[in-house]
Formats: sequence, C-alpha cells, structure tokens
Amino acid sequence: AAGAAEDLYISQAVVFIEDAIQYRSINHRVDSKSLWLYRWYYSRICQWILSLTITIILALAFIETPSSLTATSDVRYRLPAWDPPCGLTEGIELLCFLVFMIDVSVKSYLIGWEEFWKNKWLMAYILTLIISLTDWVVSLSFFCTEAVRIRRILRPFFLLQNSSMMKKTLKSINSTLPEMASVVLLLAVHLSLFTMFAMLLFARTKDGLQDKEWVGYFRNLPDSLTSLLVLLTTANNPDVMIPAYSKNRAYSIFFILFTVLGNLFLMNLLTAIIYNQFRGYLLKSVQSSLFRRRLGIRAAFEVLSSLKETPANAEQSYVSAGALFQVLQKVEMDFRCKQAIMMSLKICSCDQLSAAQFQRLFEELDKDAIKQHPPCPEYRSHFMRKVQFVFGHPYFGYLGNVVALANIVSICVVLVLDADKQPSERDDFFLGAINCFFIIYYLMEMLLKILAMGLKRYLSYPSNRFDGLLTTILLVLEIATFAEYGFPHPGWRPEFVGLLSLWDMVRLANMLIVFRFLRIIPNMKFMSLVVTTLLDLIKNLRAFAGILVVVFYAFAITGIMLFKGAVVPMGNVRKKCDFMSVFSHFQAEFICCLLYHRIAESFISFHLIYRWAKVYFVAWWLISSVIWVNLFIALLLENFIHKWDRRCHRESLSDIEYQRTVELMFRDVLEEPTEEELMEKLHQHPHLHLCR
Amino acid sequence: AAGAAEDLYISQAVVFIEDAIQYRSINHRVDSKSLWLYRWYYSRICQWILSLTITIILALAFIETPSSLTATSDVRYRLPAWDPPCGLTEGIELLCFLVFMIDVSVKSYLIGWEEFWKNKWLMAYILTLIISLTDWVVSLSFFCTEAVRIRRILRPFFLLQNSSMMKKTLKSINSTLPEMASVVLLLAVHLSLFTMFAMLLFARTKDGLQDKEWVGYFRNLPDSLTSLLVLLTTANNPDVMIPAYSKNRAYSIFFILFTVLGNLFLMNLLTAIIYNQFRGYLLKSVQSSLFRRRLGIRAAFEVLSSLKETPANAEQSYVSAGALFQVLQKVEMDFRCKQAIMMSLKICSCDQLSAAQFQRLFEELDKDAIKQHPPCPEYRSHFMRKVQFVFGHPYFGYLGNVVALANIVSICVVLVLDADKQPSERDDFFLGAINCFFIIYYLMEMLLKILAMGLKRYLSYPSNRFDGLLTTILLVLEIATFAEYGFPHPGWRPEFVGLLSLWDMVRLANMLIVFRFLRIIPNMKFMSLVVTTLLDLIKNLRAFAGILVVVFYAFAITGIMLFKGAVVPMGNVRKKCDFMSVFSHFQAEFICCLLYHRIAESFISFHLIYRWAKVYFVAWWLISSVIWVNLFIALLLENFIHKWDRRCHRESLSDIEYQRTVELMFRDVLEEPTEEELMEKLHQHPHLHLCR
Repeated sequence: AAGAAEDLYISQAVVFIEDAIQYRSINHRVDSKSLWLYRWYYSRICQWILSLTITIILALAFIETPSSLTATSDVRYRLPAWDPPCGLTEGIELLCFLVFMIDVSVKSYLIGWEEFWKNKWLMAYILTLIISLTDWVVSLSFFCTEAVRIRRILRPFFLLQNSSMMKKTLKSINSTLPEMASVVLLLAVHLSLFTMFAMLLFARTKDGLQDKEWVGYFRNLPDSLTSLLVLLTTANNPDVMIPAYSKNRAYSIFFILFTVLGNLFLMNLLTAIIYNQFRGYLLKSVQSSLFRRRLGIRAAFEVLSSLKETPANAEQSYVSAGALFQVLQKVEMDFRCKQAIMMSLKICSCDQLSAAQFQRLFEELDKDAIKQHPPCPEYRSHFMRKVQFVFGHPYFGYLGNVVALANIVSICVVLVLDADKQPSERDDFFLGAINCFFIIYYLMEMLLKILAMGLKRYLSYPSNRFDGLLTTILLVLEIATFAEYGFPHPGWRPEFVGLLSLWDMVRLANMLIVFRFLRIIPNMKFMSLVVTTLLDLIKNLRAFAGILVVVFYAFAITGIMLFKGAVVPMGNVRKKCDFMSVFSHFQAEFICCLLYHRIAESFISFHLIYRWAKVYFVAWWLISSVIWVNLFIALLLENFIHKWDRRCHRESLSDIEYQRTVELMFRDVLEEPTEEELMEKLHQHPHLHLCR
Repeated sequence: AAGAAEDLYISQAVVFIEDAIQYRSINHRVDSKSLWLYRWYYSRICQWILSLTITIILALAFIETPSSLTATSDVRYRLPAWDPPCGLTEGIELLCFLVFMIDVSVKSYLIGWEEFWKNKWLMAYILTLIISLTDWVVSLSFFCTEAVRIRRILRPFFLLQNSSMMKKTLKSINSTLPEMASVVLLLAVHLSLFTMFAMLLFARTKDGLQDKEWVGYFRNLPDSLTSLLVLLTTANNPDVMIPAYSKNRAYSIFFILFTVLGNLFLMNLLTAIIYNQFRGYLLKSVQSSLFRRRLGIRAAFEVLSSLKETPANAEQSYVSAGALFQVLQKVEMDFRCKQAIMMSLKICSCDQLSAAQFQRLFEELDKDAIKQHPPCPEYRSHFMRKVQFVFGHPYFGYLGNVVALANIVSICVVLVLDADKQPSERDDFFLGAINCFFIIYYLMEMLLKILAMGLKRYLSYPSNRFDGLLTTILLVLEIATFAEYGFPHPGWRPEFVGLLSLWDMVRLANMLIVFRFLRIIPNMKFMSLVVTTLLDLIKNLRAFAGILVVVFYAFAITGIMLFKGAVVPMGNVRKKCDFMSVFSHFQAEFICCLLYHRIAESFISFHLIYRWAKVYFVAWWLISSVIWVNLFIALLLENFIHKWDRRCHRESLSDIEYQRTVELMFRDVLEEPTEEELMEKLHQHPHLHLCR
C-alpha cells in the first residue's frame, strides 16, 4: 500500500509539473485513474483529434447547401455548385458531436462535480450540444429541407470554448463593454440630434429645383439617419455635402461640425477607452500564467515532500533528489530543458531539496533558448580559407541584395515598356534572358554561401532558408521552362505547351523574384524592428483573431440566412449586386467579412430589398470596423510601446537571437508570487488534501 | 543714484513676476528703459494689435483676386466676386508689414545681440519679412498682374512665430519625423512591391473580355500605383477588387493581404509611433512652464534681496516685506490672486522673507479658483419658502429635462408625419401650437428657478445661462411670430410676411429647441466626463490647431496657384468638377482642407488635367489624414487616460467645480525644480548680473 501511495505521489507530481509547463490550472482530480485519464486527455493525439474535429465542423459550411466552391463569383458564368446528398454532412456532423460529447464528459469528470456547477463555460458547452443535437434530429426528420438551421450559428462556440486564451480575452472585452456602450450611446444621441437638425435644415422648399439635398439624402427620417450614419463611416463624405454646399457655402458648417464631433472626437474616444482598458491586459495575462506555473511546481513539491523519506526536522519540508529524478524521467517536456534541469540537479549534488531550491531548478523553463549557430567548416587549403572569408563576409550578402534590387528594377523597366503592348506583340526574350542570368547568379550565391558556411550553419539562419527555398523553386521553374520552350532567343514566343504558357511561367518567376526581394528586410534596422513587432503581434493576436473568426462565422451564417435568394442580378443595379449576388454564399460572405468592413458601409447606403438588413450591416460595421479595429490598435500600441522601451534598454544584446515570447517581453516587470499566495491557493485545491 | 538703483530693482522684480505669471522667459534686457519697452511690448493693447495684424494679413486671402465671397459655390449661378482695385489689399499688406517690422525690431532689441544670433526663429522672421517686401515691390511694379505671389505662401509664418506653444509643438513634431519617415518608407516599399506584383498578376491577356481588372486599374505603372495608393486610403475599397474577384475568388487574397499589411499594420504602426513619441509631451511642456514660473519668482527674489536693507548675516538673503508690497502693487495680475497674496503677506507678519517663504507666497498662482455659487435668497413667508424648496430641488430640473425630451419627440413625430407632404399641403398649426405650449413651459421654468435661486445664483451655473439664453431667444422669436402671423389656428399657413416666412420661423424655433436639449449632458455622468475631456482637449489642442491652420493655409494657397483655371465645368464630369470648380477659390480650398481629407483621397482616383497634381493630393493626404489625425489620436489618448486615472482618484471631490487647466491636471506628477537648478539658470542670464 505504501508503494502504491508512493506511485500516486510520483504521478501526481508528474502531472503537476506538466501543468506548470503548459500553464494549465491544477484544479483537477488527483486519484491515480483520473490522473491517467487526465494525461491521456491532454496527450498530443487527443488534443489534435479535438482540434481537427473543430476544424471539420467549421469547414462544413464551405460545402453545405447554400455555398459555392466555384472559382468565379460571377453568377452569369458560375456553374452550379456541388450539392452534397442529404445525410453526408449530417453524418460528419454527428461524428463531430460524438467527439464533443466525449470531450465534455471527460472535462466535467476531471474537474469534479463541485467545480462543474461553478463552471459556466461547461454548462454552455452542454447546452450548445443539446440544442445542436435536437436541431440535427429535426433536420434529418425533414430530410434536410428545413428552412433554418440554428446549429450552424452555434458552431463557432466549439472553437471558442476550446481555447483558454480566447475565453480570457472575451472576459476582458466583456469588462470593457459598459464603457463602450456609453460611447455608442453618445454616438446615438449625436446622430439623432443631428438628424433632427438636418431634417429641419434641409426641409422641402416650395422651389422644387432648390431642394436637391432633401431629395437625395434627407427625404424622411430613415433616409436622414442613414445618410448621417454613412457620413459617420466617411463612405459618402464629400457627396452628401455637395448639393447643399453648392446652394450656400454656409451649409458646410453643419457637415463639418457633424464630422468633427462624430468622427474625430467620439470615434477616437472609443479608441482611447479601449486602449485604456487593455493597457494592462497583456501584462495581467502573462502574470497569471506565471502564477499557474509557479503553483504547479509548488504543488509537485508539496506532493513529493509527503513521501516517506521526510527527515527529522519537520519545520521545513524537503524533497529527495532521487524522487525528483524519478519524476523528471516521466515528465513530457522539451528535451533541452529536461537535460538542463537534470544537469543542474547533478551539479547541486544535494540529497534534499528545499522549496526554493526546487523552484530554482525549474527556472530553466522560463529561460530563453539562446540559439547558437553551428560553426563554419574549417578548411585546410589556404585557397579554400580565402574563398570562405570572401563569401562568408557580410558584404557578399549586401552584394546579393544589390543584385536582387537590380533584378527588381529590370523587371520594372520591362513592365513599363510592355505595358501598352498587345499580348501578340510581346517578346518574352528580354525578360527570359534577364531571369536566366539572375537565377544563375542566385544559384551561385547559394552554393558559395553553403561552401563558405557549411550546410548546417547556412540552414540555421531563417533568411538563408527563405533565400534557398525560393532559389530552388526558381531553378526548378527555369529548368521546366527551358525543357518545354528551349533557350531564350529573340522572338521567343512559342505557342502554348503543357500546363502553363511561357508568359505565365515568366510571370510566375518574376513574382517569386519580387517575393525574394523581401530578404533585404533584416538588413534594415528599423524595418526589422517593425517586422519583429508585427510578428510578435501576430502571436499575441491569436486569441483576438480566434474571436474574430467566431464573430465572422456567426455573421456570415446569419447573412446567408437573411439574404438567401434576396438578390437577383438585374440590369442597372448590376454592379452593386455583384457582391450581393455572391452574398448568399458562404465563402463570399466570409471573404467579405474577413476584411472588407467598408463593404458594410457602402451597403448601408443603397436600398436593399429587405429594409431591416440595414440593422445587420450597422451591427457588422460597429463590430468589425469600430470595435475590432480599435482593439487591434490598442494591442498594437501596447506591444509596440513595450518593444520600443525594451529596444532602448537592450540595444547591446541585439546580436543574440532570442526566441521572443510574450512571457519574455515582460520578464522585467513581472512579479513573482509569494510563498503565502501559493500555499493559500494550494489549500483551496478541491481534490488535493495536503497533510499540513 | 541709490534711489534710482532701488527703482530699477523694483521694476525688475515687477517684470520678473509678470514673466512668471505669463510663463515667459526671463532672458531679456533689464535696464530701466528696456524694462519700460518690455512692459509696453507685452501690454495687452500691443499684443492685441499684433494679433489683429496677423488676423488681417491671413484674412486678406478671402478678398484677394482668386477668391469668391459669394454664397453659392456653383459656377453656374455664381455672380462674379468683388474684385478689389489694385493697391487696396497691397496697402493693407504694407501696414501689416510695418507692424511686423516694429515687432521684430523690438523683440530683437529686447533679447540683446548675443541672443539674437542664436535665435533661428527671429532670423527666419526677418528673412520672411525681406522676401515679402521684395515680392510686394515686384507686385506693385507689375500693377498687381504678376503670375505668382510668393508672399502669400509665407503669410502663415507670421502666425507661427507669434506663439511659443506652436513653436514648441513644432519642435516636438520635428523630433518624431525620422521615425515617421521610416514608416512612410516602409509604406512606400510595401506599395511598390505590391504594385509590381499586381502588374504581373493582372497582366493583359489574349482574351480581351477577361482583363477588366487590367483595363480598369492596372493598365500601366502610374495607374497601378494610384489604384493601390487609393486602396490604402480605402476610398476605392470594394470596387478595385470586384473585376478580379468575379473572375476568380482567389484574387481576393492579394487585396486582402495588401490591405491587412498596409492599412491594419503599417498605418496603425504610425499611430503607435506618434503616440509613443507624444506620450510625455504634455507633461514635459507643463513641467517647463512650471520651471519658468519658479525661475521668474526666484529672479524677482534675488533682485529684491540686493536692495540696501540686507541684514547682517549674509549667508542667506532676505527680502523685506515692504519692498514686496511695493512690487505687488505695480504688478499686473489677476485681482483675486493679488488679494490673496497681499492677505497672506499680512498674515505672515514677518518683516523679512526667505526665498522659500517668498516662493510659497506665490503658490497662490498655481491654485485652482474654487468657484462658489452665491447663496439662495431667504424668504420670510412660509409659502415662499415652500415654493423655493419645490422649484430649487434637483427633481424640478429633471422634470425640465423630461419636458425637453417630450418636446424633441413631438417635433420628431411631426417631422415624420410631414416628411412627404408638399409644402403647399403643410399645416403649421400643430407645430405652432406645440411650440407655443413648450415655450411657455420653458419660460415658467426659468422664472420659477430664478425665484427659487435668486438671479445671481441662477446665472452662476453655466447650464442655467445656456438654458436662459435659449429660452429668451425662443420667446422673442415666438412673440415676433405671433406679432406677424397671429395666434396659431387650424390652417395656420399665411403668406410670406416680413423677413422670414412662418415656416422658416417655426423651423428656427425647432432647431433652437433641439439645441436646448443639450442641457441634459451634465446630468449624465459618463457624458459629462466625455464632454469635459473634449473641452480640455480643445484647450490643449490650440497649438496643434494653429499648426494645422498654418499647413491648411499654405496648402490652400498652393492649391489655388496650381489649379487656377484648371477646371472648366463640362457635361459628364460635372459632378466631380463640382469641387474642382470651386477649388481654385480660397474659401472652398480652405473648407475642403479644413476637414474633408477624404476629398483628397477621392481626388487621387480620377484623372486630373495636371497629372502631377497627384503629388499635391498625396502630400495633402499624408499630412492631413495620416499625420495630423494620428497626432490628434495621440493627444486624445494622452488626455483621456490622464483624466480617467484622475477621475478614479478624485471621485469624491467631483462636486466642486474646478477651473481645470492643463497645469492642474498634472499637478500630482510635476517635479518642483531644485534650488540649484534655479540658481544655475539665473547665473546664465545674459543681462542680469547678480552680485553673488
């Protein structure tokens, strides 16, 4: 029994340390079977299956009925999209639901009943599953011909609940909502007062020719409101003013006042509020991650210290190095870290570890992996060493950049010269010859660099990998071109052969060359700062992007339901319908939503068949353009300012390539949790009952 | 001679204290004649004349030849503008130049030769004057028919050099320029790479029907560049994508990438950089103002301490209270402050003041004026006291708000009902009757409040002043209406009589009522926070607004010179020319510039007669839309965040109405300059030679 207890302690410690590594909460069951289930649930394969399931259920919308996976979006040329038979997508859905049901039951079991009732996310998860399954049954009983599918709108919830970062972010956004609502209310008051003013100002006059403004924009209350709302989005900015302005210049005062107050003040106030709220957001989240890590390590220590080998003085608890060694071998973690910890354990050579020593051992986890490039090969011959010196020198890299620039310029010149030529007059000889020359240079450059640095060192630089990959692709493309069309010669314009025409191949090569030109970025100091900031931002933005996807998805599905069959392509409203016609299909919706928030703005301005669709677009504009963009600005400001301050401090260390993570960015300002906080939290653990 | 020296010291002290009050530099000549000149130069009348001169010379552009002070901007209806005879505006200009010459010579004399050579602003001032005068002579010798008037572009400089705040701000902006330039360079690289990509991607194809994208947007290099630049301003956002998108959905990836990188990342990066640079800007400027104030006071102390009455122990210098009293009586300052200082001087009742005591006396200057409302009248009769209680109660104010809201709603209902009616069908009875009723209520409310609070207390609240003023105007308007058109009755729609038609009068009354509704703002907590922030912002923004006016002016004048006679109103390009036709006139330019930065964006998109005008518009877009708007956001963020933090601290004190200034906002974080810093600065004074 003592052996079993010992085993349990060891495996508890293993799980706690793994929790610490992954920044997970340690509030789960700790009996040996649950621990096995817990490790299984958080194993790579299980989590991968879960992610795949979520991806599949979200991707279903791309092949479900009101969708079109055709290349063109033009209704005139579009072939009917493939219509999956009833039961196919539904079958896949059922499988996904089964996985989710397993997921929710394992999760609920692992945190225990008591915690389950407190966890609103799990309750919502179960509710969503119940609704979805009911909807699924209804769907099948109608043989897939039912009008509305509620479960499609609910799908993004599965994505949301699976990420703790996204849940945290959502909570943050939620706490900003009251203040945002105040500003939105202010905007509404602003809008309604100015609307009344406008209706009184631009009223219908007896002289029918004079009231262009009234006819165009302020005919009645909804029209006026729409005109001014669109003015707030600046979509109809000069146009709405022109009729009144050409009647009397003084009318412009009204529009200027409206725009200054609305656009310049109130809209930017929203930015200020959101930024103010999110100023500490990143720091807070990193701080709580640190707390989780320290807590997991401490929990492992406490568990191990209850092992039999406790020494006489019971005032301070100790952990034997042997037990820790045993635990470490079972823990799944980064190989480098594990090695480092084992090494320091050996160097320390103390038999008993105190809590502080134990924590210190695991500090290796927080350290940056300083990347060391493999050494250059050492050549014996004098000549080779000279070659190595010449081509390993940074100046050779700069020369490469100059050549790449020359290539870009030459392509540009050819493009300008060929701009107005008919395709039949075009001679591909010149471009082909240039490409051939430059690609040979690139190949040479790559080979010489590999010779000088050795393949391993060459590949250890990301910029070289980028370079090498593109050069190889270019080479393959060039060889394929020559194989198909022969070497370039004047009048090199053979007929279409094989997969791509010569012209397309040359174009493709040129595009790759333009893309390859990006290698100059790390060489420019400010640019590389900006680019690393942007890359960091993308890492930190994952949670926000996830929420954005959730919102987009929900909006896209709602849009399809609202506008299904709403638009028929007609003559004169053709152009505006270009989008509307594709709007009732998922991909289009998604792409529209993905970025073109201004589309919503312009949509507000023209008459839709369904009047209340305005509400949809206004909501969309508010969420995507106003709130999300401001969130983005807030995060960017936060990130950039931190980075900037840090750059000034660490100017000297810039040679070493850090693997930058959010945690490391805030290293200097993070507070270590105190012993008391940790122990208090540990004693609140619902399942772990410590002896003391 | 001793008396003369004493007088000199006294007047030096007076001037230094005045410098401290106005936050002026004390580095000027200090002999008695110069002091007299200095006080004269900074007297209210002189400064007022200078400001007037600047206003006049700037305003000249509104009546000079290529201008139009007509009401309509439509070239078809416009009467020819008044053309001032040659010599009139030039005469006014000469007078202005004379004033400026006096200004520059007095300024140069006062700071002394040595300082003059270091002062680049003064040199530039003189240079500007010389160029302007030369240009003026040329102008007159051509009898005002010369083609270019350089001096008109130089005019805003006079505004710029007269404000120390603006000069400081300009310096700040200047120091941000290198980083801004980096981002702009990044934008340029982004733009040019994507342009090349686009030209390769949307090349002309053999199938003429398929290359709509090429025809419309990417025909040649300048076209492609323009298309993408306009896309960066989001002016042609969905349109530019549609032809390619309807050919193949995948093309949207190109546009999405371009917009995400350009608009979302790079543009907002500019915001981040500017905000980062301006984060400490306000604090720094307030800190330097504080230093100037303390320095002025200290200088006065040092000067006074060299008076004969110095006591025996020479270790610490003292100032006699009598001398200070003498000085105080000569100083021009706020009456309240002077009284307070005199009072504390009397209370202190010490004969000799140390430096610290001296500084403490003048701390009154930094204090907020706490506004105390006069007391309510005390009535003897019990009934009157009850009346006073009822109508002085806040609930009566709330009732007033509810009634105002009801009025707004009723106007709104009438507007909606009357929206589609012909003017001839309209019956003004209903609106007239409603207005009549509500205006009587407003009058009653005002009178009852005055009765309850007494006239003085009533007028001491700004919201009551606003209310009362509007009620009085409404009353006058209503009485005028009744006098002209009789009392309202069904079918109340008499013919046009007098200055305004009945309909116009009713509309005017309604507009005033809508405006009066703004009185609810102080009653809503968040709204009042926002409004006070905005008001603060406006105060702090004066320097920025000044620079903006300078830039606008220069751009407007340049625009007139470039586009003089460039646009002739033609049939089909009529609408777009609406603006262009007015563009060669000053007011239009100015109003356009004033706000409608998007105009510039749309201008870039269509073909102008002068191709290089694009450069003008791109520059305009960069300065107005990109840089200025970002500066504005940065300031707003700074202001709002300070205010917000402060609100949390001072929640309890919100009842007292502070006269909020920038200085007070930063009170808690400002650092007092040390004794050593002050003395070091004093010893560096070019003209004042302290004994010790």
